Amino acid sequence: MRANLLTFMSDFGAHSGYAAAMKGVAAGLTEARMLDLSHDVDAFDIRQGAFLLYMAAPHFPKGTVHCCVVDPGVGTSRPALVVAAGDQYLVGPDNGLLLPAARRMGLQGVWRIENERHFRHPVSHTFHGRDVFAPVSAHLCNGTAPGEVGPPTKAWVELDFGRANVGGRRAAGEVICCDAFGTIVTNLTEADLRKIARVGDELDLTLGSRCERLRWVNTFGEAEGEELILDVGSHGFVEVAVNLGSAKARLGPSARAPVVIEPA
Amino acid sequence: MRANLLTFMSDFGAHSGYAAAMKGVAAGLTEARMLDLSHDVDAFDIRQGAFLLYMAAPHFPKGTVHCCVVDPGVGTSRPALVVAAGDQYLVGPDNGLLLPAARRMGLQGVWRIENERHFRHPVSHTFHGRDVFAPVSAHLCNGTAPGEVGPPTKAWVELDFGRANVGGRRAAGEVICCDAFGTIVTNLTEADLRKIARVGDELDLTLGSRCERLRWVNTFGEAEGEELILDVGSHGFVEVAVNLGSAKARLGPSARAPVVIEPA
Amino acid sequence: MRANLLTFMSDFGAHSGYAAAMKGVAAGLTEARMLDLSHDVDAFDIRQGAFLLYMAAPHFPKGTVHCCVVDPGVGTSRPALVVAAGDQYLVGPDNGLLLPAARRMGLQGVWRIENERHFRHPVSHTFHGRDVFAPVSAHLCNGTAPGEVGPPTKAWVELDFGRANVGGRRAAGEVICCDAFGTIVTNLTEADLRKIARVGDELDLTLGSRCERLRWVNTFGEAEGEELILDVGSHGFVEVAVNLGSAKARLGPSARAPVVIEPA
Repeated sequence: MRANLLTFMSDFGAHSGYAAAMKGVAAGLTEARMLDLSHDVDAFDIRQGAFLLYMAAPHFPKGTVHCCVVDPGVGTSRPALVVAAGDQYLVGPDNGLLLPAARRMGLQGVWRIENERHFRHPVSHTFHGRDVFAPVSAHLCNGTAPGEVGPPTKAWVELDFGRANVGGRRAAGEVICCDAFGTIVTNLTEADLRKIARVGDELDLTLGSRCERLRWVNTFGEAEGEELILDVGSHGFVEVAVNLGSAKARLGPSARAPVVIEPA
Repeated sequence: MRANLLTFMSDFGAHSGYAAAMKGVAAGLTEARMLDLSHDVDAFDIRQGAFLLYMAAPHFPKGTVHCCVVDPGVGTSRPALVVAAGDQYLVGPDNGLLLPAARRMGLQGVWRIENERHFRHPVSHTFHGRDVFAPVSAHLCNGTAPGEVGPPTKAWVELDFGRANVGGRRAAGEVICCDAFGTIVTNLTEADLRKIARVGDELDLTLGSRCERLRWVNTFGEAEGEELILDVGSHGFVEVAVNLGSAKARLGPSARAPVVIEPA
Repeated sequence: MRANLLTFMSDFGAHSGYAAAMKGVAAGLTEARMLDLSHDVDAFDIRQGAFLLYMAAPHFPKGTVHCCVVDPGVGTSRPALVVAAGDQYLVGPDNGLLLPAARRMGLQGVWRIENERHFRHPVSHTFHGRDVFAPVSAHLCNGTAPGEVGPPTKAWVELDFGRANVGGRRAAGEVICCDAFGTIVTNLTEADLRKIARVGDELDLTLGSRCERLRWVNTFGEAEGEELILDVGSHGFVEVAVNLGSAKARLGPSARAPVVIEPA
């Protein structure tokens, strides 16, 4: 598994120099093609970063290395990981960030990053993106085996998006996040929804304290005017959307707000 | 026309995973250099995306493929297009997005994307950026001819920025958009303005319901203090700007607001 | 010094087409790898752009060319520069933008960009990023010597982040900027702080008109709850931060606000 592609994801903000410094370190170590996934994950929001990776990483070719930094515990004793999944590598802090993507891609192995020979020195207390994750990622691109980076491990911090509760004529879950269109992504899957409804059905949505009636459609464009609709997103999760508008602006959900869907 | 350069433009938002997923699919299909034009076009704003392409695409080298997704009609029956212009390819939905750039670059041919052999499968209802536009763009980079992607067509959705109305001592047009500096870009051209004024002249600007007196200068830096000025932007359109400030913040125009310029 | 890496930094805004146009021009002239440092520097904020370069550029490999555009004086008589530093090149306007990074990297030489043979023509009044800095940067990547671009110079606009004033039991400086986490970066260095305190000490911070007591810690993660803390950032400057929160939101500093730190 030899990559010629290195991606970066962080909550550093596209306007700061942190992402740039990280890319500089990597560029000095590898000739790989380098791409940004995003540097605009909300600060400290591990769950949002994990969802971004879950959506994007599986679509990359075998051998890709993803350097991932949403790391509120930087400089503390939290370990750092290399995760092999789907013949790609995910590199980042041991806080759950890498796990949903890795499970979706097929988890193959996890190593703790401990070999300081692959770090940039001196290692700062506050910027392991530049000093640990970027150089380790670049070395993996160049063919360094994960076993050279540190020992394999069977213990890591878990994170998932929760499992919806479907029973009778009712599916209950929670909000994962919202996208740039204001579409609200829930942790209900298409399979969950199919147990209680079919495409075209009218449904009652309870989102936090709001209650709305809406239709299950295949795509936003089938909505009439600014109709609130429900669809299954390209990531496989049930979404609430407004055609040419923002469901987030209309319903104002918070992350992890409870969601209940029932036939109307 | 064989490209080694692939660009991406969308309204997906730099903080979401959609652009990243699209780049992942393309990276698995082509070794081309990949660059982002922008993923921060306002959601669903075809006109703004069209202007960004109009500004940027003509400056790319021959053979470049631009993968362009501002696509409120995704998943409906709206066709998808490959447009050849200026020895480059523009790939995107048939909603006008590609046309202003293509006309500026010299339109050479239009094809409807229909050959599913070049798609990612299964094709989702909501994310043709990942499933249609990215793989087709990557195949074009690799030398696939547009005729292999689908049949040529003579019918497509048009979009332009409108034509200013210049008569006597008065030029009337509308706002196209605003940039990061708060500069207001109108659809009046330098030629329009030259019919009624010369560089250095004082002019009266009516923008929506606001009326302001300002000078036509060559560049912002010629303004005094926070003077409101008028200049011809690098894209060839007449702009209203404030040196070291924001004309948008001062005048608060809406998109397509009417603009009238007259000698003072 | 031959680069195969070209970076871009600007205040053009990631949502505009300016950065894209600049990359298009460069892509037509060089096969170098191209990376974005950031296009989201605040409009006209030379000092913020200079800090971003200071943070990021030193981490890039020898031979890298950085094309840098925060240029409120575009189109006026302000000169344009190539700066050689740390075996890299910095290209941009002569307004101080390049200097803090260049001094950190080791200033090797400065040239004025005057040879129009390396420009894109016609040269606009308002967009030297596209017409001057991008093509000159690309030519430097391809091996053009800076002396071919224009004459060497010993005179340029200076910019620094100021020097803290440390005396007795008191260190006084000012705010440089804030990052995406709301961390407030000051121009006090670790050496300044070590003259009056040690890691673990309680300190009194005066920031503008606010006065706060806080601890000097090694990293955010050592803070308790939403404690306000002080640390030395990865760039070497003293920062004020809130773990999992925003010091900027809590203290609301303005750029260049005075900062005083004293033992509690």
